[in-house]
Amino acid sequence: MKNTFGQSVSVTLFGESHGPAIGAVIDGLAPGIPVDEENIRRMMQLRQPGGAISTARKEADVVEFLSGVLNGRTTGTPIALIIKNGDTHSADYQQMQSLMRPGHADYPAMCKYHGFQDTRGGGHFSGRITAALTAAGAICMTALSGRGILLGTHIARCAGINDRPFDDLPADLRALETASFPVLNGDAGEKMKQAILAAREDGDSVGGILETAVLGMPAGVGEPWFDTLESTLSHILFSVPGIKGVEFGDGFALSDKRGSEANDPLRYLDGRVVTETNHGGGIGGGISNGMPILFRSAVKPTPSIAKAQKTVDIKNQQDVELRIRGRHDPAIVHRARIVIDAVTAIALCDALCMRFGTDYLAPQDTETL
Amino acid sequence: MKNTFGQSVSVTLFGESHGPAIGAVIDGLAPGIPVDEENIRRMMQLRQPGGAISTARKEADVVEFLSGVLNGRTTGTPIALIIKNGDTHSADYQQMQSLMRPGHADYPAMCKYHGFQDTRGGGHFSGRITAALTAAGAICMTALSGRGILLGTHIARCAGINDRPFDDLPADLRALETASFPVLNGDAGEKMKQAILAAREDGDSVGGILETAVLGMPAGVGEPWFDTLESTLSHILFSVPGIKGVEFGDGFALSDKRGSEANDPLRYLDGRVVTETNHGGGIGGGISNGMPILFRSAVKPTPSIAKAQKTVDIKNQQDVELRIRGRHDPAIVHRARIVIDAVTAIALCDALCMRFGTDYLAPQDTETL
Amino acid sequence: MKNTFGQSVSVTLFGESHGPAIGAVIDGLAPGIPVDEENIRRMMQLRQPGGAISTARKEADVVEFLSGVLNGRTTGTPIALIIKNGDTHSADYQQMQSLMRPGHADYPAMCKYHGFQDTRGGGHFSGRITAALTAAGAICMTALSGRGILLGTHIARCAGINDRPFDDLPADLRALETASFPVLNGDAGEKMKQAILAAREDGDSVGGILETAVLGMPAGVGEPWFDTLESTLSHILFSVPGIKGVEFGDGFALSDKRGSEANDPLRYLDGRVVTETNHGGGIGGGISNGMPILFRSAVKPTPSIAKAQKTVDIKNQQDVELRIRGRHDPAIVHRARIVIDAVTAIALCDALCMRFGTDYLAPQDTETL
Amino acid sequence: MKNTFGQSVSVTLFGESHGPAIGAVIDGLAPGIPVDEENIRRMMQLRQPGGAISTARKEADVVEFLSGVLNGRTTGTPIALIIKNGDTHSADYQQMQSLMRPGHADYPAMCKYHGFQDTRGGGHFSGRITAALTAAGAICMTALSGRGILLGTHIARCAGINDRPFDDLPADLRALETASFPVLNGDAGEKMKQAILAAREDGDSVGGILETAVLGMPAGVGEPWFDTLESTLSHILFSVPGIKGVEFGDGFALSDKRGSEANDPLRYLDGRVVTETNHGGGIGGGISNGMPILFRSAVKPTPSIAKAQKTVDIKNQQDVELRIRGRHDPAIVHRARIVIDAVTAIALCDALCMRFGTDYLAPQDTETL
Repeated sequence: MKNTFGQSVSVTLFGESHGPAIGAVIDGLAPGIPVDEENIRRMMQLRQPGGAISTARKEADVVEFLSGVLNGRTTGTPIALIIKNGDTHSADYQQMQSLMRPGHADYPAMCKYHGFQDTRGGGHFSGRITAALTAAGAICMTALSGRGILLGTHIARCAGINDRPFDDLPADLRALETASFPVLNGDAGEKMKQAILAAREDGDSVGGILETAVLGMPAGVGEPWFDTLESTLSHILFSVPGIKGVEFGDGFALSDKRGSEANDPLRYLDGRVVTETNHGGGIGGGISNGMPILFRSAVKPTPSIAKAQKTVDIKNQQDVELRIRGRHDPAIVHRARIVIDAVTAIALCDALCMRFGTDYLAPQDTETL
Repeated sequence: MKNTFGQSVSVTLFGESHGPAIGAVIDGLAPGIPVDEENIRRMMQLRQPGGAISTARKEADVVEFLSGVLNGRTTGTPIALIIKNGDTHSADYQQMQSLMRPGHADYPAMCKYHGFQDTRGGGHFSGRITAALTAAGAICMTALSGRGILLGTHIARCAGINDRPFDDLPADLRALETASFPVLNGDAGEKMKQAILAAREDGDSVGGILETAVLGMPAGVGEPWFDTLESTLSHILFSVPGIKGVEFGDGFALSDKRGSEANDPLRYLDGRVVTETNHGGGIGGGISNGMPILFRSAVKPTPSIAKAQKTVDIKNQQDVELRIRGRHDPAIVHRARIVIDAVTAIALCDALCMRFGTDYLAPQDTETL
Repeated sequence: MKNTFGQSVSVTLFGESHGPAIGAVIDGLAPGIPVDEENIRRMMQLRQPGGAISTARKEADVVEFLSGVLNGRTTGTPIALIIKNGDTHSADYQQMQSLMRPGHADYPAMCKYHGFQDTRGGGHFSGRITAALTAAGAICMTALSGRGILLGTHIARCAGINDRPFDDLPADLRALETASFPVLNGDAGEKMKQAILAAREDGDSVGGILETAVLGMPAGVGEPWFDTLESTLSHILFSVPGIKGVEFGDGFALSDKRGSEANDPLRYLDGRVVTETNHGGGIGGGISNGMPILFRSAVKPTPSIAKAQKTVDIKNQQDVELRIRGRHDPAIVHRARIVIDAVTAIALCDALCMRFGTDYLAPQDTETL
Repeated sequence: MKNTFGQSVSVTLFGESHGPAIGAVIDGLAPGIPVDEENIRRMMQLRQPGGAISTARKEADVVEFLSGVLNGRTTGTPIALIIKNGDTHSADYQQMQSLMRPGHADYPAMCKYHGFQDTRGGGHFSGRITAALTAAGAICMTALSGRGILLGTHIARCAGINDRPFDDLPADLRALETASFPVLNGDAGEKMKQAILAAREDGDSVGGILETAVLGMPAGVGEPWFDTLESTLSHILFSVPGIKGVEFGDGFALSDKRGSEANDPLRYLDGRVVTETNHGGGIGGGISNGMPILFRSAVKPTPSIAKAQKTVDIKNQQDVELRIRGRHDPAIVHRARIVIDAVTAIALCDALCMRFGTDYLAPQDTETL
C-alpha cells in the first residue's frame, strides 16, 4: 500500500519539502473524538527545530484541516490535514540535483523514480514530511488517552552518553510531555547537548537511541504470525527517516542472556496477572500481555554534514567531492522522539480498532443512536 | 490481515502443533517457477532438530502439495502445502494448560482467545509452524535465485561468542547453504556448541544474533514511507518466534557514530554506482541501492527450560512453581537461521513483484503466449 | 490480494479440480464460535449435483479441518479446511487441453498462466472450488446466526420463468434452508425444472437470476466511498463463477423510475426508524440502514454444453469445432444459490468485524478472561 | 481500507461538500506520466452541472496539486490534489439536519457517525466528492492512453428511452469524449432531455443506465477468485453514488439465454485469438481476454426532489413531511458518466500494475537509469 499505513485506522502521507504543502489523510477514526489543538501544537513544536542544536529553518507548521473535523471533533470520515510550506531555500539544493548526498535517499530515489522525483530539499524523502505524520499521530494520541493509554519517548543514549532508564513510568511520561530535550536525567542531557555542539563544530553530526514506553495497553492485541504487535510497530518505526534498528524489551541484550534470566515470571497482583520483570517489553508471542510496552529505536547520525564527502555526479558520471551547504541539524534525535510517539500512536490505534472495532476509540460518554 | 503476509506475493499460515497438519498457502508467484524439491528438503532439514543441542522430537516434515504445483513447476494459482503432524506427546502438555509458561505466548494467547485456543504443544504459536513457513520460503528462494538473488544467514553471536563477520559474500553464502550449524569460523562454532551444551546441563538455554546477507537485489525497491524495505523486512522478521530485535546495516552501532563515519561514500565502479562502505545495509531512504542487503536479528533464549520457574495457575488463580517436562531445545538460533532465510525470501519476492510485476519472477526462458 | 477476500475476517481459496484436494483458510473469526457440522453438511449437499438436472459426478465432499477448530468450536486461529478430490475423470479433459472451451476461463487463463496452469477439469477455475468456498461460508453463516442475522437465496427467474418475490421473509428464508431446488412457488419450480430438462435434451443449458435476502443486519455498516456495502458484496459475488450481473434493491429497474417512486419514505415503527418500501435494498449511501438487505445476481447459462461449438486449437493455431464430452450441468442456478449464501455470509462477517471488532461474532454467552 | 481503493495504484478520497476543500491522494503511479491538464479540465467540465437539466450551483472546480506533480509529470510519489469549495448555501441545508432525506445517506450516516458527521450539503456523502474522484481518474485516463487503452461511457437508457448500442468503438469513443450529453444517437438524446425536463416540471427526477466500453485492454489481467476483473470493477463502480446495479457483457440478459447463445465462439483473426461475439464483455473466468470490456451501470433517479416526501425527524422523533429546497439535479446520469470513466480508469491502472508492475504505465520513451 505504498505511502499508507494501517487497516482499520490508516494514515496516508503526501508532500514534498519545497512543494505547496505537505499533509496526511487519517481514515477510520471513530466519530466524536476530540481534536485537541493544544496537543497538536505541543507535538508540532517539539518536532520543530530550535536553538543551536537544530537547523535554523523556521517553519510555522500550522496544521489546517480540510476535512473530517467539525466543531473540534472527528466526524468519522477521512481527516485531511495540510501544512503549507514556506521559507524554502530551493537555491541551496538545486545545484546539487545530480550530486548524490551520501547517507541520503538521493541515489536510491534516482533508481526508483528515474529522475522525475522532486529533489528540492529532499522532496518526498525530506524529514519535513514527518510534520504531517506528527500531526496525524497527535490526533491518535488524544484518541488513545481517552482509553487511558499513555506513551512517551526519551533519548536513552546520544553520542555515547546514557540517560537513566525509565523508572516511575507515569511520572516519567508526564515529565517528557513538555521537554524540548527529552531526557530523564538532566545532567546526562546537558552532556548530550555539549556533544552535539562539539559535533557541529567539527562539521559533523551525531545519532542516538530513543526509548519508548506505552502504559495502559490492554492485553490480547496482536496476531500470532505476520501481524504480531512487534511486526506492526517495527513496520511503522522503520519508516521514520534515520531509524536503522528496533528492539523490544531487552532486545539485543536478550541474545546474551540465558532463558532463566530472560523469561518474565508471572504472578497475581491485586487479582490481575502481571510479570515480575518486563524483559519481553509487554509483548509475548506477538501479543500484548497487559504490561507496559517498551522498545528502543536506533537513530543514525544526521546525514547532512558540512564536512567534505566523496560521492558521484550522476549527470557527468564521475566521482566528485561534495560540500553540503544550507541549514542542517547536527542531531535529530531529540526531535525524532515526538515522531516516534506519533507513529506509535498510529500503529496502536490501528491494532486496537482491528481487535475491538472502530468504536473502541469513540468517546466513552457519547450517546450512540 | 492477521496470519497473512504480502500483497503481490502472499503467504498465509495455518496449523497447530498437535493438530492433524500445519501448512501454508503461497499466492501470487508467477507460473512456471521450478519447485525445487531438493532445496525444500535441504531447508526443512536445516530447520529440524538434531543432535544434542536440539530437542529429540523427530519430525518427518514431508511437504505435500495440495495445489498450485504441476509437473514440478508453479501453476501460478495458490500453492497449498501441508506437513502432517505426528510424534506428538500431547500428554506432556495437557497437564499444564492452566499453567502459563514464562517467556511463552500462553498468557497473552489466553487473553486473546479466552481459552478456546489449542494449547497442546503451543498450538498455533508453536515453533513447529515455522516448518510450513520454511517450506513456503524455500519456493521463494528458488524464485529469487532465478533472478540471481542469493541470501544466507549465519550465527553472528551466541552465548557471548562472536562468529567472524561476512567477508567474501558469494563464498560465505555458498558455505552456509549446507551448514547444519551455520558459522563462518569453525572454532567459534565449536565454542558456541560447548556453551549451548553447558546451558543444557544447567537446565537452561541460550539465545544469539543472526546476521543475514542478500546479494543481487536490484536498486529501487521499497517505498519512501511506511512500506520501506526495512519496514517490510522487519515486519516479517518480527513474526518469527523469539526475535526481539532487528537492525539494518550497522544498526544500533550507528547511533554511536558520527555522520562522517556513518555515511557511505558513493563512487563509480565499472560504470556502476557503488558505495565504498555499507553501513546502511544496502538500503537508503527505505529503498534498495543495489549494494548487499545486511541485517541482524536478535534471538532470545529458548523459553522452555528445565529449571523451576515462578508463574500463575489461571484456573486456580494462584501463584505456582512450574517445572516444564518434555523435549526442548537449549538453543534454536542455529535452526532459526533458515526460518530467517525463508521469511526474507518471502518479503523480497513480494517487494519485487509489487515493483516489477508478477512476471518478474517467471522463468526467464519461458515463452509467453 | 489475489485469491484472498476480506480484511478482518478473510478467506483464502486454493485447489484444482483434479489435484489432491481443494480447500480454504478462514482467518479472523472470533474464538468460541460453534462449528455446526450439520449446517456444513446441509450446505455441502445443497451445492452438490444430484438428479437429472445436474452432472452425474459424485463427490463425497467431506470437509476435513486441519486447524483452527477444537472441541467443535473455533479456536480463533486460522481455520484450514480441505475437501479431498476423488472420482475425477481426467481423461475426459486431457485431450482438449489445447482446445479453448467457449464461455470457459480456458483462453484467458492461458494468457495469464502461459500454459503452466492445471487445465484438468478446469483446474483452479473449476466450479468445484466453490465446495471449499461453501464450507467456509457455512461457518460464517453460523457465526452470523449467533447475532440473529439470517440469509437465504431463491431462484427468482430461470429459463424465462419467474418465482414469486419474497413476501414473509422469516418464513421464506426458513423454507429455503432445506430446499434442494430453491423456489418460493412450487409450480414455478416445476416449470423451471422442465425447462432445464428440455435444454438438456437439446444438448444445451440455461441460466437464471438468484435473489438474496438478509434479515437482522444492523444499521451503520459500510463505508461511504470504495468500501460501500454494495462494493464489498458485489466484489465477492462477482467472484462466483457464472455471475455476470449484480443489483441491489430494485437495481436496474430503478433506472426507469422517477425519484418520487424510487425513494423509500422513512417512518417510526415501535420507536425504530424503518422505511415504508425497500427499493434501496437496505443500503443507503453505501451503508446498511437496518432494513433487510436485498440483491439479485445474474447467472449465465452453464458454458459446458454438448452441442458442437466453434473455437481455436492454440497448439496447432487453427480454428476447430469442439464437442465437449464428460458430465455437465444443464443448469447450475439451483446449486449456485448456496454459494451465493456462503459468499454473502463471508462478506458480512468481514464488514461487521471491521466495524464492531473481532469479538462481535464471539458467542454471546462466553465468559471472557 | 475504508475510503481508499487499490493496491498497486491507490486513491484515497476526502472532503465534505461545505468544508474548505475536497480532494484525493493518488499513490503508486509510475514517475514520468504526463499530467494532462487539458484532459483534467475536460473531465471536470463534463462532470459539472450546466443548463436546465442540472443544478444551478456553479463550481469553479479548479484542481490544485499539492504534491506528486513536477514540470507537468508525475514524480512517482503520492499525488495530492484538492478542489476548494465555494458557492455553498449552507443555510439551505442546516434547517433539515434532523430531517432524514429519503433516498439519501442521511439516516444510515446518522447510524454510523452518531451525529458527529458533517451534514451540510450531504457532507462526505455529497456527489461533490466525485469531483476529486474525477480528477484522480483523469490522470489515470492519461496513463492508460499511453498504453493504448481507451474508454468511454454513454447513456444507454434514460427515462425509458434507449440510445443506440456501441457500434464502431473507436469512433464512438472519440465522439463521446467531448459530448456534454453523452449519447450515440442524437435523436434519442433529445428525447431523453425532454423527459428530464418533464420530470423537473413535476418536481421529480429520473435515472438511467450507463454503458462503458474499454478498448485495448491486454489479455490475462484479473484473478480467478475474489479479485476477478468484474469484482474489482464492480467494487469501485458501486461506490459511485446512485449506482444500484452493474452487469458485464450481456449481464442480466444472459440469464434468459441458453449456453449455445451465451458462449462466445473463438477464432483466429490475423494470428490473434478473438471471439466472434462478446456476450461475456471481454472477461472470462474473471480475467480479461483481449476483447473490449463492456459493462453497464444502473443509476437510480436523483433522490433530491421538490415533491413533498414522508420521512422522520430524528430530533423530535416523529414522522414529518419534507419539502427539499435548494438547487438540485433532475438527472445526474449525463454527469455520472464521466465519474464512471474515472473510476474505471483507476481500477484498470491498479489491476494492470498489480499484474505488470508499476513501470507498466511509465512513459514508453523514458530512459531509465
